[in-house]
Amino acid sequence: MKIIVINGPNLNMLGKREKSIYGNNTLKDLEDYISNKFKKVNDEIIIEFFQSNHEGCIIDKIHESMDRYDGIVLNPGAFTHYSYAIHDAIKSIDINVVEVHISNIHKREEFRQKSVTASACIGQISGFGFDSYVLGITALINANNAFK
Amino acid sequence: MKIIVINGPNLNMLGKREKSIYGNNTLKDLEDYISNKFKKVNDEIIIEFFQSNHEGCIIDKIHESMDRYDGIVLNPGAFTHYSYAIHDAIKSIDINVVEVHISNIHKREEFRQKSVTASACIGQISGFGFDSYVLGITALINANNAFK
Amino acid sequence: MKIIVINGPNLNMLGKREKSIYGNNTLKDLEDYISNKFKKVNDEIIIEFFQSNHEGCIIDKIHESMDRYDGIVLNPGAFTHYSYAIHDAIKSIDINVVEVHISNIHKREEFRQKSVTASACIGQISGFGFDSYVLGITALINANNAFK
Amino acid sequence: MKIIVINGPNLNMLGKREKSIYGNNTLKDLEDYISNKFKKVNDEIIIEFFQSNHEGCIIDKIHESMDRYDGIVLNPGAFTHYSYAIHDAIKSIDINVVEVHISNIHKREEFRQKSVTASACIGQISGFGFDSYVLGITALINANNAFK
Amino acid sequence: MKIIVINGPNLNMLGKREKSIYGNNTLKDLEDYISNKFKKVNDEIIIEFFQSNHEGCIIDKIHESMDRYDGIVLNPGAFTHYSYAIHDAIKSIDINVVEVHISNIHKREEFRQKSVTASACIGQISGFGFDSYVLGITALINANNAFK
Amino acid sequence: MKIIVINGPNLNMLGKREKSIYGNNTLKDLEDYISNKFKKVNDEIIIEFFQSNHEGCIIDKIHESMDRYDGIVLNPGAFTHYSYAIHDAIKSIDINVVEVHISNIHKREEFRQKSVTASACIGQISGFGFDSYVLGITALINANNAFK
Amino acid sequence: MKIIVINGPNLNMLGKREKSIYGNNTLKDLEDYISNKFKKVNDEIIIEFFQSNHEGCIIDKIHESMDRYDGIVLNPGAFTHYSYAIHDAIKSIDINVVEVHISNIHKREEFRQKSVTASACIGQISGFGFDSYVLGITALINANNAFK
Amino acid sequence: MKIIVINGPNLNMLGKREKSIYGNNTLKDLEDYISNKFKKVNDEIIIEFFQSNHEGCIIDKIHESMDRYDGIVLNPGAFTHYSYAIHDAIKSIDINVVEVHISNIHKREEFRQKSVTASACIGQISGFGFDSYVLGITALINANNAFK
Amino acid sequence: MKIIVINGPNLNMLGKREKSIYGNNTLKDLEDYISNKFKKVNDEIIIEFFQSNHEGCIIDKIHESMDRYDGIVLNPGAFTHYSYAIHDAIKSIDINVVEVHISNIHKREEFRQKSVTASACIGQISGFGFDSYVLGITALINANNAFK
Amino acid sequence: MKIIVINGPNLNMLGKREKSIYGNNTLKDLEDYISNKFKKVNDEIIIEFFQSNHEGCIIDKIHESMDRYDGIVLNPGAFTHYSYAIHDAIKSIDINVVEVHISNIHKREEFRQKSVTASACIGQISGFGFDSYVLGITALINANNAFK
Amino acid sequence: MKIIVINGPNLNMLGKREKSIYGNNTLKDLEDYISNKFKKVNDEIIIEFFQSNHEGCIIDKIHESMDRYDGIVLNPGAFTHYSYAIHDAIKSIDINVVEVHISNIHKREEFRQKSVTASACIGQISGFGFDSYVLGITALINANNAFK
Amino acid sequence: MKIIVINGPNLNMLGKREKSIYGNNTLKDLEDYISNKFKKVNDEIIIEFFQSNHEGCIIDKIHESMDRYDGIVLNPGAFTHYSYAIHDAIKSIDINVVEVHISNIHKREEFRQKSVTASACIGQISGFGFDSYVLGITALINANNAFK
Repeated sequence: MKIIVINGPNLNMLGKREKSIYGNNTLKDLEDYISNKFKKVNDEIIIEFFQSNHEGCIIDKIHESMDRYDGIVLNPGAFTHYSYAIHDAIKSIDINVVEVHISNIHKREEFRQKSVTASACIGQISGFGFDSYVLGITALINANNAFK
Repeated sequence: MKIIVINGPNLNMLGKREKSIYGNNTLKDLEDYISNKFKKVNDEIIIEFFQSNHEGCIIDKIHESMDRYDGIVLNPGAFTHYSYAIHDAIKSIDINVVEVHISNIHKREEFRQKSVTASACIGQISGFGFDSYVLGITALINANNAFK
Repeated sequence: MKIIVINGPNLNMLGKREKSIYGNNTLKDLEDYISNKFKKVNDEIIIEFFQSNHEGCIIDKIHESMDRYDGIVLNPGAFTHYSYAIHDAIKSIDINVVEVHISNIHKREEFRQKSVTASACIGQISGFGFDSYVLGITALINANNAFK
Repeated sequence: MKIIVINGPNLNMLGKREKSIYGNNTLKDLEDYISNKFKKVNDEIIIEFFQSNHEGCIIDKIHESMDRYDGIVLNPGAFTHYSYAIHDAIKSIDINVVEVHISNIHKREEFRQKSVTASACIGQISGFGFDSYVLGITALINANNAFK
Repeated sequence: MKIIVINGPNLNMLGKREKSIYGNNTLKDLEDYISNKFKKVNDEIIIEFFQSNHEGCIIDKIHESMDRYDGIVLNPGAFTHYSYAIHDAIKSIDINVVEVHISNIHKREEFRQKSVTASACIGQISGFGFDSYVLGITALINANNAFK
Repeated sequence: MKIIVINGPNLNMLGKREKSIYGNNTLKDLEDYISNKFKKVNDEIIIEFFQSNHEGCIIDKIHESMDRYDGIVLNPGAFTHYSYAIHDAIKSIDINVVEVHISNIHKREEFRQKSVTASACIGQISGFGFDSYVLGITALINANNAFK
Repeated sequence: MKIIVINGPNLNMLGKREKSIYGNNTLKDLEDYISNKFKKVNDEIIIEFFQSNHEGCIIDKIHESMDRYDGIVLNPGAFTHYSYAIHDAIKSIDINVVEVHISNIHKREEFRQKSVTASACIGQISGFGFDSYVLGITALINANNAFK
Repeated sequence: MKIIVINGPNLNMLGKREKSIYGNNTLKDLEDYISNKFKKVNDEIIIEFFQSNHEGCIIDKIHESMDRYDGIVLNPGAFTHYSYAIHDAIKSIDINVVEVHISNIHKREEFRQKSVTASACIGQISGFGFDSYVLGITALINANNAFK
Repeated sequence: MKIIVINGPNLNMLGKREKSIYGNNTLKDLEDYISNKFKKVNDEIIIEFFQSNHEGCIIDKIHESMDRYDGIVLNPGAFTHYSYAIHDAIKSIDINVVEVHISNIHKREEFRQKSVTASACIGQISGFGFDSYVLGITALINANNAFK
Repeated sequence: MKIIVINGPNLNMLGKREKSIYGNNTLKDLEDYISNKFKKVNDEIIIEFFQSNHEGCIIDKIHESMDRYDGIVLNPGAFTHYSYAIHDAIKSIDINVVEVHISNIHKREEFRQKSVTASACIGQISGFGFDSYVLGITALINANNAFK
Repeated sequence: MKIIVINGPNLNMLGKREKSIYGNNTLKDLEDYISNKFKKVNDEIIIEFFQSNHEGCIIDKIHESMDRYDGIVLNPGAFTHYSYAIHDAIKSIDINVVEVHISNIHKREEFRQKSVTASACIGQISGFGFDSYVLGITALINANNAFK
Repeated sequence: MKIIVINGPNLNMLGKREKSIYGNNTLKDLEDYISNKFKKVNDEIIIEFFQSNHEGCIIDKIHESMDRYDGIVLNPGAFTHYSYAIHDAIKSIDINVVEVHISNIHKREEFRQKSVTASACIGQISGFGFDSYVLGITALINANNAFK
């Protein structure tokens, strides 16, 4: 099973940016953390990573993923709150997508409490730091296995 | 580590109610599913269950849990959308609470897309069927271990 | 045919409370009025009564009614305007429910003009005093007979 | 006792229009259904019918009814949701008016959940198919008798 | 003169909960503080206490109070912001009710700035810590004496 | 100078309807009152009258007035609050129109405080009983003379 | 193929009204323009015209069209923005309806940017002057042919 | 009969300010225009003038007017749209107040279409230039005479 | 301890204005009532009074109070609902301010239910007639003593 | 005459995505369909195509089009609903732009009913499948010829 | 060139008030800071100062400035958010006005993010501490010189 | 000190686009104007320029600027009104950012009056044509020097 983790705008700044909210670790740390978690327990899960600050690149990547991966774990960053184009991109493919957030978006500014992308995903996980991704991948594996 | 899973109103009707949304399995099936998942992998995790259609009973249970459990996984059912009293109950205790939903609430009626309780929890997991609970317990264990 | 009439919060205060809106008769008078109306014309209709100020008790009663009654006439009182939990309870059973109100709620305060429970019922009757209940039971009998 | 049943716009299309919502029977069927219901039980009730797609004709008819009928059962169709002129017409006469709807308007599109005419009526009945009219006439008879 | 002080949900957690907002003292301390204040100055004032996390129990207690007390001082806790059922309960009795809050609700989250219960009371006192109760009882005594 | 006074829906019920708001006099009384006011002081002013409960008839009359009258005094009744078609009709002619109301609409129900037609008129006069019409005609005469 | 072009309120004033928005040509010019466009290219298309300022007449005409025409091109004028009765009329027939507007309604006053009728049509064309009608008829012909 | 005309903020700038809206004449011209209108026809009407840019001075003047004048014609300028204090001042006296505006406020910016003061007056006149004042005084005289 | 009671606009009209809401007593009566209440029980409390209809004068007085008084009891009258300038004035000083209202503002017009000044005060007391002031002064004394 | 057809995000997925809404044909099919339609009837019309999921690329292309094409037919996809940058890009060029949509956006989710780009175009065509483009090109040709 | 700097309510409290937002320096310090900045570089710029807590005094001063100064730098304080009267005062004069704020109002409470006065000014500068004034004066000089 | 001026979408069209709002000069003219202003007075200030229509490129540039420049002057163009991703990008770096606009955005369309990016900047300058940039750079220099 091949899974791609797509990180949206400003997540390349992890560890440099607003540390009280997002912590001290970098995007590289995040990717290593995720890889290690699954390498140990299940070597049949292949996880790849992609990050972009460009909405169009994220849409392109979602489209391409349809034929290359079995599922997507997506943190759309601030695009979560206004990118109907990403919403539509998720709807245009037939593999499962799980939305994840590092912080609990329900606790933050008003505009962060509304997701326009979550309704196109199978579910949303929010608030568990880097573990949001680990939980998201697990959810994806479960969801995919449910149909086998 | 002792964890309590609290289910709110109408979840006792699981398997009888709106099967296209919630599936065919009952509350008993849900509780067995959760127990089995953790029994196999980790016998140090003790999981107990509570369900009530009474907002006051859920509040009482949350209060009592502070001294008896290490964390709560809470599906507040329809109380999610208006019970500020449960919001305050969660804030009044110092153990971690994770909010879970069987269906993806971001995909459903307008009123179900707003949670008044999630901002008092460490995070929210929504959309993964019974696995939302399993992911929630895992998240709780991770969060608790982070401080040890 | 067995029908249960469920009255919500404060309806136990009928006859004592805001008489300009609800009249001088008590809950007992209401129940007698209903029973008498049907006793005369049709002794195959058995009508029972339940009143509670507790949202949870009303939900429990709705659940139990599924196996004991052929239909429910429900005046949710002020719960009409915010109890999504009662909305869900009605949806979780497969017998018919009719919502009734003594006063014309469309004529009263802004908050009373919105019902969150009516969309889960087959219909709503509002404004005819105690006769709202009699009309509601009649509607229920008609609706049930339509499927025989 | 003479009662007039006034049907608003598009109700002449009953049986041709959106059958999943309104059923297969025509306006003529509706009128016969109502007449038959009361002919059997009470030959002192005279029921007449009027239908128009013209707001102004409905207002004229409401005004004329004051001297010719003892009450009105009104299904304002889509005018329910914006005709303040019909609201004012109802207020300008001193016989009772009951608002009825075939479908449960509380379950349908957002714009159909608000009635601007109901606050001028003694009550509203919604959701019981053709029986909404029968219940409405019964309610009217009861209301009128209450003052004799 | 007999007065009952009713405390709503989560006030049993006083002294344990969000101390920066509510202070270090417990519900027991609050009740003693109030009793002592009045015992010294006026032994004709009898004050009793009730706390519940159950909306239904608070409604029941308000109803019962009509015949047993001369007035109610009510802190509805989070029910302040959505319990139209408590609003109606207050309206259903004919003794005076004063709404009190420990913290200044006008300074807190948006949702806490709206009270749906205050319009059924004679007045509201908010922001003075435990003294909000003492001021509330004083206000009640004054209001009652005004009619003697 | 020829002026037409157009009265909208339900104004034919004047004197019969809601007397606490509109007084005891009939539409005929209103028309006589207006005629008499101007007959005495200025016999060059010819005033004609039109009343309809039909939005379409009012629009037709507004269109025809362009070639037959020097100005319109219009009380659109409840159409004031939603008839954008009358708004457009007023804009489609090049004689002056003055909007008048018997009662002070700024003091009444929320929906009556918004006029969608006034912005197409030269001005609005509201609250002076039958004199609103007399003031409106005077305003029209002044406005017309300003361009001679 | 027989098509009817229905024009709503104030379109009889074309060429007289607000020329900066609607141009100098009259309704007659519009009808000739449309007829000529199609006469040349396709003499199997029969186009008839109807205009009314009366909402009820437009509804009646829509109903009648079902048996007499193969499609409707409708410019509802200001009714576009509030006539739910016309919305329902369109839904009550089973021939195709295309909504057209001379001006670009998305560029004008706030209230003109919302159409309550378009959702009952197959599509909407707005902003191309008299050509909006020609495009609308073409769209209708295409849509009808798609099913042959 | 003694009447005072009170002009609010910025009306001292008449003739200097936004001439396309308010014209070329000054406040002095306005006052002369009004005086002359009534001097000719009725020398029993004494009209005095007051202008201030200070909300407090307008409130003081309204209070004083109660014992010195028989009525007030008030153009509150921009205070129209937010001064609830002037609203209350009008309510605190028992002489009649008429609100007037030079321009048609229903045609201007959104914020100018709402008056918070008009509901405390007997009526409002808007859009007739300086004649709004003349009409206002006439309305006031009529209203006062109605009670003699 | 020196305390100043500041009354805002229209409170000089007490006893003359809307007696059904505010009662028959004048501002002088109010001031005497307050003085007498405290003179008897505690001659160390010096109370002074200020009233103005001028927002600016109230702001100036609040500023000056910082060095002359130990606290302020403020009834901002209608300024309560829009004067952010008074809100800022209260925040700019470091003595305690208590907001009071004679009537229960939560029971009155929509616009009176929102206070923009209360969030800058330590608390708000509303609905107890003249006693609102007495309670306010008591609250202020308690609050000040808490820090001694 | 040279025209460019610009397709926005996710339209490259046509035929793969949500077929119940957009049909089975691909973007290539769409482009061929359009080309063929015009090739037959008019070989002076040259039509080119561009598709991108990148908002910035669409803006760049709009800018470049000013010197290379005589008009643009634009389907902004989901950017329709939030890209004020595309709105501004359209305004920054002086060739005509027509907005088109395959589906009837007025019938779909709430967020799709508002276009922020249409007000910068000459008009909008929505709901006619691939023919929306053909109609859009025709409209563009007409509009351009109108100025020759 | 003569410029006046007008400071609105509570700015006399600078240095005493909310120092975390506005800093430690007083209004006198602010005025000296501004004077010194320009004295050094350009002795042809004469800068005068005015501060008031009275809305009316600020309006009067704006009016007077037209003949005495070449431009105004205005910090309306909290009047920024509701004083349509100051908005109108700025519009009533023909010299340039620049709005300035010490703090970044876009970062503060919701109500401070809306300016009702800025739309009457040539521009707004917000967030640069005392330098907001220096930048404002520079902007004013540039704007004035642009027309010489 | 090195500063970068970042211009957002459509600013490359300056001088070609909507000249009544933005003037006749091009982006090149703007950049020269800024350079010249500072070259003369201070050769220690190095100013570089960047423009893009791509949101992602602007985010990338903001990230890179952290290590290469001492501050950013940013005109986000239409992204001002919806790009929460740029908001987050500004928050993710620790150099100062000043937001500037050529026109006074508070005077334009409703949607341009809200900035979602300004709250992440130290301040905003709007309305002074090309001088908005010069003032922005000056503000940045001042802000940076304040910490040396």
